[in-house]
Amino acid sequence: MCRWIAYRGDTVPLEQYVTAPAHSLVVQSVRALESTASTNGDGFGLGWYGSHAEPGLYREVRPAWSDENLKHLCRHIRSPMFFAHVRAATSTPTNRPNCHPFVHGKWMFMHNGQVGDWSLIRRRVEELIPDEFYKSRIGTTDSEAMFLAILGANADADPIAATMRTLTTLTELVSTSGTTEPLRFTAALADGQNLYAFRYAANDAANTLYYRTSEGNLLLVSEPLDKDRESWIPVPPNHMVLAEVGKPLEIVPIDLAVRIAAE
Amino acid sequence: MCRWIAYRGDTVPLEQYVTAPAHSLVVQSVRALESTASTNGDGFGLGWYGSHAEPGLYREVRPAWSDENLKHLCRHIRSPMFFAHVRAATSTPTNRPNCHPFVHGKWMFMHNGQVGDWSLIRRRVEELIPDEFYKSRIGTTDSEAMFLAILGANADADPIAATMRTLTTLTELVSTSGTTEPLRFTAALADGQNLYAFRYAANDAANTLYYRTSEGNLLLVSEPLDKDRESWIPVPPNHMVLAEVGKPLEIVPIDLAVRIAAE
Amino acid sequence: MCRWIAYRGDTVPLEQYVTAPAHSLVVQSVRALESTASTNGDGFGLGWYGSHAEPGLYREVRPAWSDENLKHLCRHIRSPMFFAHVRAATSTPTNRPNCHPFVHGKWMFMHNGQVGDWSLIRRRVEELIPDEFYKSRIGTTDSEAMFLAILGANADADPIAATMRTLTTLTELVSTSGTTEPLRFTAALADGQNLYAFRYAANDAANTLYYRTSEGNLLLVSEPLDKDRESWIPVPPNHMVLAEVGKPLEIVPIDLAVRIAAE
Amino acid sequence: MCRWIAYRGDTVPLEQYVTAPAHSLVVQSVRALESTASTNGDGFGLGWYGSHAEPGLYREVRPAWSDENLKHLCRHIRSPMFFAHVRAATSTPTNRPNCHPFVHGKWMFMHNGQVGDWSLIRRRVEELIPDEFYKSRIGTTDSEAMFLAILGANADADPIAATMRTLTTLTELVSTSGTTEPLRFTAALADGQNLYAFRYAANDAANTLYYRTSEGNLLLVSEPLDKDRESWIPVPPNHMVLAEVGKPLEIVPIDLAVRIAAE
Repeated sequence: MCRWIAYRGDTVPLEQYVTAPAHSLVVQSVRALESTASTNGDGFGLGWYGSHAEPGLYREVRPAWSDENLKHLCRHIRSPMFFAHVRAATSTPTNRPNCHPFVHGKWMFMHNGQVGDWSLIRRRVEELIPDEFYKSRIGTTDSEAMFLAILGANADADPIAATMRTLTTLTELVSTSGTTEPLRFTAALADGQNLYAFRYAANDAANTLYYRTSEGNLLLVSEPLDKDRESWIPVPPNHMVLAEVGKPLEIVPIDLAVRIAAE
Repeated sequence: MCRWIAYRGDTVPLEQYVTAPAHSLVVQSVRALESTASTNGDGFGLGWYGSHAEPGLYREVRPAWSDENLKHLCRHIRSPMFFAHVRAATSTPTNRPNCHPFVHGKWMFMHNGQVGDWSLIRRRVEELIPDEFYKSRIGTTDSEAMFLAILGANADADPIAATMRTLTTLTELVSTSGTTEPLRFTAALADGQNLYAFRYAANDAANTLYYRTSEGNLLLVSEPLDKDRESWIPVPPNHMVLAEVGKPLEIVPIDLAVRIAAE
Repeated sequence: MCRWIAYRGDTVPLEQYVTAPAHSLVVQSVRALESTASTNGDGFGLGWYGSHAEPGLYREVRPAWSDENLKHLCRHIRSPMFFAHVRAATSTPTNRPNCHPFVHGKWMFMHNGQVGDWSLIRRRVEELIPDEFYKSRIGTTDSEAMFLAILGANADADPIAATMRTLTTLTELVSTSGTTEPLRFTAALADGQNLYAFRYAANDAANTLYYRTSEGNLLLVSEPLDKDRESWIPVPPNHMVLAEVGKPLEIVPIDLAVRIAAE
Repeated sequence: MCRWIAYRGDTVPLEQYVTAPAHSLVVQSVRALESTASTNGDGFGLGWYGSHAEPGLYREVRPAWSDENLKHLCRHIRSPMFFAHVRAATSTPTNRPNCHPFVHGKWMFMHNGQVGDWSLIRRRVEELIPDEFYKSRIGTTDSEAMFLAILGANADADPIAATMRTLTTLTELVSTSGTTEPLRFTAALADGQNLYAFRYAANDAANTLYYRTSEGNLLLVSEPLDKDRESWIPVPPNHMVLAEVGKPLEIVPIDLAVRIAAE
């Protein structure tokens, strides 16, 4: 289990949420409270939108808590939409391409969870990635493969439908693979304008996800950044968060069949 | 293009060939003489056989020339059969799983060259790897994929035939992929007892390979370790070196069709 | 606070104590039980004596738990005397020269503790290092500085007296520096033949130290490697362990004045 | 010998000079043309002024040419004044605190050169650093020590005089140390408003330094970034470049005695 935060709102320095709060993401890298893996020291990453359509990316294999560069970058980089992620590796090596977030063109993605027994269904998930996106597969995680599968399911046309289609396929792959390990997918996806987050699981409880809104700014977190628990609202299991340009924030159920049928 | 050395003979400290010679592998990491990439600073690796059937492995992303650990390990580790490799990355990231050598059970492999346009045929090469070996695919290089494909072609039964079968398939894949980039395969394979080396290319000149024997000890190198050029014998293009237990050293042509037919 | 182990006895693979036990040092790197810093993820190191008078050394900034090289080296390196250390950094950066153990010629040293307020007395401690040893100062930790000060106090002639002299000076420096922070010195020193360990503190409780002997083999640990608590004997505070060639193991009080006067 | 660039002018993305030019600093990290060390692969660093008085800093031990983060940061960070540096280590380890630039409060510094035989005069140079700045000494290079010595010589009051005083002392230290190795100091110093660069040597030729101005923007480089040689003007040996707020650019001789007397 990893820990992450996603922000969409007024332009702020990343430090405001990544390093400054009492229980900031960097503090969580040492000691998370709502995670089976209390230490999230297997690398980390920052992704942010700025003056380019394509997001910036900083990923490093060292633990977030001891990285001097991270402090400098969080202080100096300002963004209206960014992701930050600290990793607790499951079965894949600790190297930069396996750190979150992942980017491709304007798209950015990060994930907390797992896809059943990865060694059992890895090939099947890789097969979901069309050739044009497979070229961008530079790591070996389930998370990166799911991201590229979602893009391959035509996220450009409809990111929600693409994610639902991919989750439907993944749920089937896991259930028919013979594993008893769950599919857990607490993830965030963004295109620079819109931000989507998902709290989904099959065969298990979904990994935690909270949000907080303040003056139109949205913050999504694996666990609250401070003890003001009332300000942090849990996203219900099997729900998703839609923060789209020109629309009010929506928290809606993930109903795989309905969404896909609606296309 | 990378640089490598492989040794089989009396037990010696690794430093004897990796760091001590005038034009040692570590010197080649800064300035190689017979390579298009004169700097081989994209990580390196050591693999050695010792008291276990499975080889030891040390791989690191920093350049070999500045790694203090490398000096210590080369001084203290003694082995009768070892590989050392300095990398000049082509299109895959610099991380440990992408550094050579690669190991699986008793097998060890390293490579200098390329497999046509990797982005074009990568999926086809991955498909050559049987499921039982695909679990060990922790990086994204063409070299690791070829190694696992060779193991999947039953290297345990006949490593030469397995390599020939794989090279035959790779040659076809490259030639039908539409690329003009060559297949270049200057590689070493070992099982702890026997050492095999290959200098092969399709559509191009084969990458250099030299050997030197002295009192029954065999050293294979991408380029000579000193200026005593007479002691270093070039392996002819499209030939392979067979150093097997209880047999004399053999340098024989790589004739893909003949070897496979002879099985 | 860091965690460490030191071994002297029959030649064994390092994995026997570094990675294999239920509460091995690598497990302690994730979750230590008797340390204020439960995570010791700020780098680690191995030092071992082998066929050379000078020890081998492997230090790395990544956490011990995620380092693939560490597993390989611990399986393949065998030694009759070795140190292993996982670091929880206090105020100095996480880089290799700041990782323990430290080596100089035949000497090897590692430390758990602190020297008062390092920023206050750093210059004074540096001044204790004679020029001939100052050249070897490649990091910035208090631990490395104390090691070089001990060597400068003529460890070659009498390592115990040299350590006592240095501790005496350090105790004075800390007490006159105006800090309320303690001097804590739970450390190991070896020359390839003899092994010394110290559990000392001024102005505070001394950091834990345990030992276990079995068939003439000595193991010293920051905290027990398994739940067989009876086999692990605490070294009393302000005592030292002397394991010297041809002498029985001794646990004796650290009486700074007495030892120095006895010279 | 290292390679560096310094920029002062309109706000631009760092990539404009660090990665984009034909012979960019990143290209120079692989193959420099006017340096004894053609490969500058022992780490690198970026420092830039932005919305804070204190500069941002990104330093990494990997070679600049293979760092994916560097490309992202250079594309996304925009600044009116920045330094970039690729390192060829001389005698100190490759770790982040030994990479340039160095920062302290509003000040930033980087250096190409050496200070005689560092092992001979290191202690004398460390002694030049007042206590209040010695706390910031986190590495072991001559360059960082000189920077802190310059700050200690009251750079806040007069950075040029502080640098002249420090160079005077260093020149004496080197000449009386008995070494035949030179003092070479091609360096840049900035406070967020003003930029200073120095090309100085004692007992040797000064390391190269060029500048180019265009529409009020100043670029200083170890060697030209492209083949338009006419646009790059060599700073004469033992001269300095003064780019101060509200003043025209000045290239003036370094006359240690005169400058100090003028105070």
